[in-house]
Amino acid sequence: MSGVYVHGYSAAEAMRLNSQASILVEFIHRGVCFPAGSRILEAGCGTGAQTIELVRQHPECELIAIDRFAESLAIAEERVRSQAQLANTRFADVRFRVADLNALPFGAAEFDGAFLCFVLEHLPDVARALSEIKRVLKPGAKLHAFEGDHGSVTAWPNDPAIYRLVAAVAGYQSEQGGDACIGRRLCPVLLSAGFHQVTVRPYVAYSDAVRPEWREAFTKATFTDMMALQRDAVLARALLTETEWQEGMEALQQAALGDGTFSYTFFRASALR
Amino acid sequence: MSGVYVHGYSAAEAMRLNSQASILVEFIHRGVCFPAGSRILEAGCGTGAQTIELVRQHPECELIAIDRFAESLAIAEERVRSQAQLANTRFADVRFRVADLNALPFGAAEFDGAFLCFVLEHLPDVARALSEIKRVLKPGAKLHAFEGDHGSVTAWPNDPAIYRLVAAVAGYQSEQGGDACIGRRLCPVLLSAGFHQVTVRPYVAYSDAVRPEWREAFTKATFTDMMALQRDAVLARALLTETEWQEGMEALQQAALGDGTFSYTFFRASALR
Repeated sequence: MSGVYVHGYSAAEAMRLNSQASILVEFIHRGVCFPAGSRILEAGCGTGAQTIELVRQHPECELIAIDRFAESLAIAEERVRSQAQLANTRFADVRFRVADLNALPFGAAEFDGAFLCFVLEHLPDVARALSEIKRVLKPGAKLHAFEGDHGSVTAWPNDPAIYRLVAAVAGYQSEQGGDACIGRRLCPVLLSAGFHQVTVRPYVAYSDAVRPEWREAFTKATFTDMMALQRDAVLARALLTETEWQEGMEALQQAALGDGTFSYTFFRASALR
Repeated sequence: MSGVYVHGYSAAEAMRLNSQASILVEFIHRGVCFPAGSRILEAGCGTGAQTIELVRQHPECELIAIDRFAESLAIAEERVRSQAQLANTRFADVRFRVADLNALPFGAAEFDGAFLCFVLEHLPDVARALSEIKRVLKPGAKLHAFEGDHGSVTAWPNDPAIYRLVAAVAGYQSEQGGDACIGRRLCPVLLSAGFHQVTVRPYVAYSDAVRPEWREAFTKATFTDMMALQRDAVLARALLTETEWQEGMEALQQAALGDGTFSYTFFRASALR
């Protein structure tokens, strides 16, 4: 697995993940329900954007949040601890641990459930990671996974510069071993890993002139900002010229202004071990 | 307006519209509710695929179904009449009339509601048609519109031959004056026509190995068959070579076999006069 995390670790990235989490939280966590007393693995928690919601919604559970990167985990832990102190709500018992999805530091059948959000998209070996997750889950344990698909973008004005930009960012993610179009593959990869009762449902994030909240929080503060973070990497690899990059970003901004529209499809899967 | 209807009039097309209507019926008609006593305009009813559902769901209404093509209307009328005789249900009072959306043969404010499904995609002058529809609606009357967007396709296996095929079919539709990507433009065109309380929601038709009903009825019997009907026109205009066409169709078939997946986004709008 590549040591580079394609979305980067800047303060800008942490803020973007926050915006994304808040506008998408209902999409991501809809139907995610683990029984009281469950021991849940959050695989690839990153800076904790979803961890906060998991601990809030599962106060009677034990949560183990893992990530490959200690610096991400430190942010996640700080974020969840401070949130817990601020709120009067009961929270799940949560622990953070550095771990590699290719070789989980847990025994077989230690978990009652697993949650993954925007994780499989970054993995060069999705099959191996899912096999590891399956190994540490008890028979009948439930897995929830949520991923995007960069190939699903529709924009108005329908400027080709947008699709060129998105394809370049997806191309960079491919070079790093990931797959920015993993959403459409969720069903196949879960079935091939041997999970049962696999169900996948699409969810569209859509913004237009009469949905200003989606424009601000999704099209601008999530998608456009996510693209912006890839600028240096994409230009350094000559996947786009500086002019093409600029045209793409301006076209994306147009899709969030005036009569512009923007849509992006996420895929949410659930499956049983 | 071009005299050619891009989807053709064959028996195959009538069957395709039937399959499409049955699997998509819940998507298309969800939230479509006109009060008892309403006089409803179905603009561009074609061969009546949606008319059947409209008359079934609005037994206390009067429905005027119009289309430019007398041969389509004849099929629609026969279909709705025979359905009404078979069923014990009460049906709306329905009349069929040849009419041009650019110049509706009705006075101002004659209708309490309007319904359009897969119509705007074919119109060279969407603004003019919406202006006409607005003219014949009473103030406060509700309009429902449902359209697809060919730019939203995602497929697994992610074979470029599929997108080349879909782009060629969309290109042919553009040559005929239509827009196969009208879905993303629904909000802008309704706002610019002066409708109020415009809301647009995306709906994804998605099929995978564990959704065989969507595979059969949507990916194969709706989408793939719709592409197949365009073969002669696309090849005659050299928008694709015969080999490219064949590769595209085979790739589409793969997306509905084994671990394949397929998704397509529709957009449903409602608005007030």
